[in-house]
Amino acid sequence: MIPTRASIAAAARRIAPHVRHTPVLRLPGGLPGCGGPLILKLELLQASGSFKPRGAFNRMLSARTLPAAGVIAASGGNHGAAVAYAARALGVPAEIFVPEITGAAKRARIEGYGARLVVGGAAYDQARQASEARAAETGALQVHAYDQAEVLEGQGTVGAEFETDAPEMTHLLVATGGGGLIGGIAAWFAGTTVQVVSVEPEGCPTLATALREGKPVPAPVGGVAADSLGARQVGGLMFAVARDHVAEAVLVPDDAIRAAKRLLWEECRLVAEPGGATALAALLCGAWRPPAGARVGVLVCGGNCDPGSVV
Amino acid sequence: MIPTRASIAAAARRIAPHVRHTPVLRLPGGLPGCGGPLILKLELLQASGSFKPRGAFNRMLSARTLPAAGVIAASGGNHGAAVAYAARALGVPAEIFVPEITGAAKRARIEGYGARLVVGGAAYDQARQASEARAAETGALQVHAYDQAEVLEGQGTVGAEFETDAPEMTHLLVATGGGGLIGGIAAWFAGTTVQVVSVEPEGCPTLATALREGKPVPAPVGGVAADSLGARQVGGLMFAVARDHVAEAVLVPDDAIRAAKRLLWEECRLVAEPGGATALAALLCGAWRPPAGARVGVLVCGGNCDPGSVV
Repeated sequence: MIPTRASIAAAARRIAPHVRHTPVLRLPGGLPGCGGPLILKLELLQASGSFKPRGAFNRMLSARTLPAAGVIAASGGNHGAAVAYAARALGVPAEIFVPEITGAAKRARIEGYGARLVVGGAAYDQARQASEARAAETGALQVHAYDQAEVLEGQGTVGAEFETDAPEMTHLLVATGGGGLIGGIAAWFAGTTVQVVSVEPEGCPTLATALREGKPVPAPVGGVAADSLGARQVGGLMFAVARDHVAEAVLVPDDAIRAAKRLLWEECRLVAEPGGATALAALLCGAWRPPAGARVGVLVCGGNCDPGSVV
Repeated sequence: MIPTRASIAAAARRIAPHVRHTPVLRLPGGLPGCGGPLILKLELLQASGSFKPRGAFNRMLSARTLPAAGVIAASGGNHGAAVAYAARALGVPAEIFVPEITGAAKRARIEGYGARLVVGGAAYDQARQASEARAAETGALQVHAYDQAEVLEGQGTVGAEFETDAPEMTHLLVATGGGGLIGGIAAWFAGTTVQVVSVEPEGCPTLATALREGKPVPAPVGGVAADSLGARQVGGLMFAVARDHVAEAVLVPDDAIRAAKRLLWEECRLVAEPGGATALAALLCGAWRPPAGARVGVLVCGGNCDPGSVV
């Protein structure tokens, strides 16, 4: 059940007709306050505004059949939008459970893709429980936000693309919430020389806590990026990968996330949501410092926010 | 004095250390309301937020020496920001004349790069006259917004990059103001099978008017994109290229520009300014329709606006 390069490559072929191969932006001079040269992967330009359709499509296209009840998911917003987007593309209904903290922009997007939106509880974990109870009633296919093999494989295709487009990359910074994204990416780079580094907000330290405790355990959920990185704990599948294949797990304060978001707008005209700017924040605040000669890749993984919030 | 592939390739080598090779975003499924597959070149991610540093750097790096008085330019905003950016990078002072219509975001950017900002007249053409009078006093190097060979050659490097990254492209839509950008790009593609199409707002029809009259003549200046496309007439250098190497020149209403701007945000999380969304507007409103089998490239050439204005 642990993703491999072969299973991620198969996922890439499966989802290719439905997702965008997102571009990289090379910044040979780096960005102010962020050290040397950088390579940004612009996954915020993905359909639905985040990397999440990769896992959603891979889960749905891997099912033998899709039930008449369609698909169901719980989400801080991005995964819900992606499942709604994928369900519309594949012609099945979708029901999406979100927590109360999910903002208006993400709610509107989920409904805009034609899904039924249900607000279920204060944070992601309550919405997940509500969605599981509902799935037991309806028989809809559950598309988990991060802890299913097909979801990790789908998200891992980000790593495959990044390697293709930036073969010189030595280190890759990735934001961690539930860990499906970094789990898939670390599985892709396992056995290579590329070091995958996890970056989490101090307010949502799921992976740092799990690595310290030696297993996935509940962690606090709070701060500016909680709507996209606010899973209560990392998934078991990702943890099995991360234990061996995530080089470091660093934490960043909310101020650094806000500053990274402003920097991406000021210097690159990119609108990243807080979770999308979190990886860059590690460079900006010095939570992670590249070794000499590093060719650092930074994944900008989502842009679902009020665009006016970047200035 | 007319740019050639050789002079544009030389410009690309000259400016390479200072500008970004901007990425393309392939959209195999196109965008709603815009016909078939599209390839967007994301030149709004260029340093300073538009394509303009290419020409500014090429002009400045082609000069035998830069005078102690530095450089001077007149601009609706983007060229001024680019000249200010390039002057800072090359360590010389810059004086930038803008018209009254130039918005606060563009003014702040020019001053943020350390240039002296002067408001000179109601529209671009008055600012240009004021800058020329000032240059005669100071001896600063004039960097014209569009009508100098080195400027066209610099902007033409956009075409060279686009061809490298999207060799399948058959048609390329480019917004026209003073025409330095499309002039350089059309010179690059002269003698190839790629058709370069000019798109202008109905409120600023500089090239359409010039082609009808057989020479550059004054045209109205107005509408939503006037701050970036509001040159009073196209340059003589670009006209000599455009007459032979621009396949068509179409006009789009402001409503289509606004809709294209919203579409780029909704579907791609891109913040284009009105002038940056003008090329796409031609597809959206049907002012230009791709022939069967076309592989259409669209240049998104600038993003210097209030990001909140996209929703």
